[in-house]
This record gives sequence, C-alpha cells and structure tokens, in this order.
Amino acid sequence: MSAHRPVPPGYVFEPQEVQAVYRAIFERRDMHHFAGGQVPPGQLRLLLEAAHHAPSVGFMPPWRFLRVTDAVLRQHLHDAVEEERLVTAHALGERENEFMRLKVQGLLEAAEVLAVVLADGRDKHVFGRRTPPQMDLASAACAIQNLWLAAWAEGLGMGWVSLFGPASVSALLALPPGAEPIALLCLGPVDSFYHEPMLQQQRWARRAPLASLAYDNRWGQGREVFDSANDAARGDGSR
Amino acid sequence: MSAHRPVPPGYVFEPQEVQAVYRAIFERRDMHHFAGGQVPPGQLRLLLEAAHHAPSVGFMPPWRFLRVTDAVLRQHLHDAVEEERLVTAHALGERENEFMRLKVQGLLEAAEVLAVVLADGRDKHVFGRRTPPQMDLASAACAIQNLWLAAWAEGLGMGWVSLFGPASVSALLALPPGAEPIALLCLGPVDSFYHEPMLQQQRWARRAPLASLAYDNRWGQGREVFDSANDAARGDGSR
Repeated sequence: MSAHRPVPPGYVFEPQEVQAVYRAIFERRDMHHFAGGQVPPGQLRLLLEAAHHAPSVGFMPPWRFLRVTDAVLRQHLHDAVEEERLVTAHALGERENEFMRLKVQGLLEAAEVLAVVLADGRDKHVFGRRTPPQMDLASAACAIQNLWLAAWAEGLGMGWVSLFGPASVSALLALPPGAEPIALLCLGPVDSFYHEPMLQQQRWARRAPLASLAYDNRWGQGREVFDSANDAARGDGSR
Repeated sequence: MSAHRPVPPGYVFEPQEVQAVYRAIFERRDMHHFAGGQVPPGQLRLLLEAAHHAPSVGFMPPWRFLRVTDAVLRQHLHDAVEEERLVTAHALGERENEFMRLKVQGLLEAAEVLAVVLADGRDKHVFGRRTPPQMDLASAACAIQNLWLAAWAEGLGMGWVSLFGPASVSALLALPPGAEPIALLCLGPVDSFYHEPMLQQQRWARRAPLASLAYDNRWGQGREVFDSANDAARGDGSR
C-alpha cells in the first residue's frame, strides 16, 4: 500500500493478497501436458463462475461454455486440432519440423475439456459493440483469463488451444449459425508446471521486453515511464 | 486444497492466496468515476508488466500500450468517445435517454489513460493465428484483464472504454496502417468502488445466470455439472 494514494474503505487487499494476485498473473503458463485425474464438480463450477465474472460490454454476455465429457467427441476435437496443426506446420515453411516437435494440445489427457463459444444472435446487442464490433471476443477472452488465473491458483493447469478450423469444430459441437468457437480449453491436474513458457523452453521464441511495446501519447514517441529511474514508488517494474 | 488432486510441488497457493485471486476476480468492476490523483511510475510499470504477462499465441505479442499524458490529446480522445456515445444512443432507439444518463468514460478524471493497440504487421505471424485469425485481439484482451485484476488488488479503479470510432482514435494516436485501437483504459484512484456493476445499479441490465450459458458436449444439451447436487467438492459454485 503506497502513501501516494488513498484506498477506498472496505476494499483494501492485504499485501499478501496483492502478491497472490501478481503471483497468479506472473506464474500462469499455457499448459499442454496433463496428468489425467479429475476436477471436482464444485471446483469446476467455481472456476466457471470466475470466468462468468469477466467484463461483458453491455452485459451481453457473449460466452457459452460446452463441457466435453463424451470421449468420442473429444477424440474428434483432438483430430480437428491435429489436422490444423499439419496445415499450420506446412504454412510455416522452414520452421515446419521444429513446429511439429511442439506439443500444442492436451485434449486427450486433460481431466476436462471446455469449448468456449461466442453465442449466436450477438448482432442484436448495440451498446459498446456498434464500434468496435469485436468486443464480444474481447469479453470472452477476459473470461478465459479469469478461469486461467483461478485454475492456476487452485493448482490446476490450463491450456488454450486455438489451433483448429472453426468450421470443423462448429460442426462437431453442433453450433447454430452465427455462433463461433474461440477456444478449446484443456484443464486439470498436471505432474509439473512449466517454469517458463513452453515456447521459450523449446527456444521457439522469447518474450519481447515490455519497454519496446510502450509509447507516450502517440505511436513511436518516447516512453518516459520506462526511462524514469529513482522514483519513490514501490514495485519498480522489476520481476 | 482438495484431496481429489495432487498439486505439483512448489506451486501450492495457500488457501488465503487462492481466495485473494477469487476476490480480485469477483470484486473487479468496470469503473467510470475517478478521483484524479496519480499512479506512481513504479506501480504503473508493474501493472503494465502484469498485462505483458498475458498469453500471447506464438509469443507475438500483439499489444502496444500508449500512455496518454498530453492534456490536449486526452481531451480529444474524450471528445471522440462522446461523439460515438451520441451515435450509439441514437442507434438504441427507445432506450436512448436512459443510455445517455449512464457514465461511460472517465477520461478527463482518471489519473492515467492508457490506449491499448493491436500492432501493425500482425499478418506475418502464422502459428496459432492462421485460424482463427483474431487470436491477437483475444491475447490483448487477456493482457487488459491482467492489468485490471492487478489494479483492483492495488486498490485502483479501471474502466475499459471501447465506445469510439477506431478511425478517429487511430488518427489521434498517429497509428500506422494495420494497427487497431481496442481500448482506452482509465486507471487511477477512486473515491469508492461500485458494489455491483454500474449497469446493474442503474437497472440497465442484469448478469445472466451462468447455468443458462453452459452445455454438455453439444450446443443445447444438458448441463450436468450444474444439476449435480451433493458432490463432495469445496466451493460449490455459490457466490
């Protein structure tokens, strides 16, 4: 708690609570290795409630959750991802072989598979969606991030698989016209968490430094907040 | 910690840490009333680092942050939102007057205004973006949600303003072709937090019950996890 700002009464997070939130945010990883097992129904409902408490412009809400319990359906979804993986690998050209060594899904091993879908009939919502219209996807992504952070805190791994052809997945899930699948979430116990992002472990790519992605006021201009040393604030951006 | 699942060593969140993460998720609100003041630079950097630790398919990352410190620019952004607000109000028809009473932005009062922009040149990224291509927006939305939860834990309010014409905002921020503004974030101290979502307080809309948004396996089918009572799990989805 800094002396610089008053915290409204009743909303103070204790320092260890603040750290717990940062801890979930900084430690969270996109997991593709799972250990089977199960997620108890009460815990799954709580995780879905966490997702459901995401921001939703005008309170649509745009998200729908399909819990995949049918083993045959799960296998078909796995196959749809595998099919897209081969096409993506080919599109990558010279990195094709390297890409093919990455594990990009855990649909067959994860305790739970949840498909996240943007609902049909979203056109009738106007408030906050006239422009830009894609705020429905943004809201649903926030819901997924909520679920991810809560799952991480609960000691469960989660992976967001988006490597699929929307048409195949829509057909498998019997989605109505206008609905769009945006994620196949693999969720459940893991044997161990990645200590750094898998793509970094596998030397596929590294995280870009934040300061290179920030500007002051207009594109390409300065970044004073990252240049200023010796300010009295806590935290200091380093971790 | 449930007996149902093993938690990988070294990654255990203490029960109060788990609760802190849920607390941030369930209490977070979209704030449009701010109390001026300031966000210390070190704290702002830490919040941006939290955003930067969002998932980013293939590690693009798609997000850019523009910190608006120029008072004239801030006024122009405010005016762009106001302009879109009038157009949206008109499009709402019979709810126009009701809508016009809602406060939809705090650009002039918030300590900080951050524009979040999808970078130009995103087309060259293939992995995880061939289909569906809009995963760049999804990643950036996760970054915003991270920032939001961290700000909330720090006792700061944040509001996501998306009510603007992208062309006007792009021009004001001097964005290059291909870059897209997705959010004007208002961030800073507040006098009091909304105890329930503002749209609910103002009787604009209510949050839909989660169970109505979930299905088993295929669209429209069952929702066993919400029907099953008496399971031994903790949490139980109620809050």
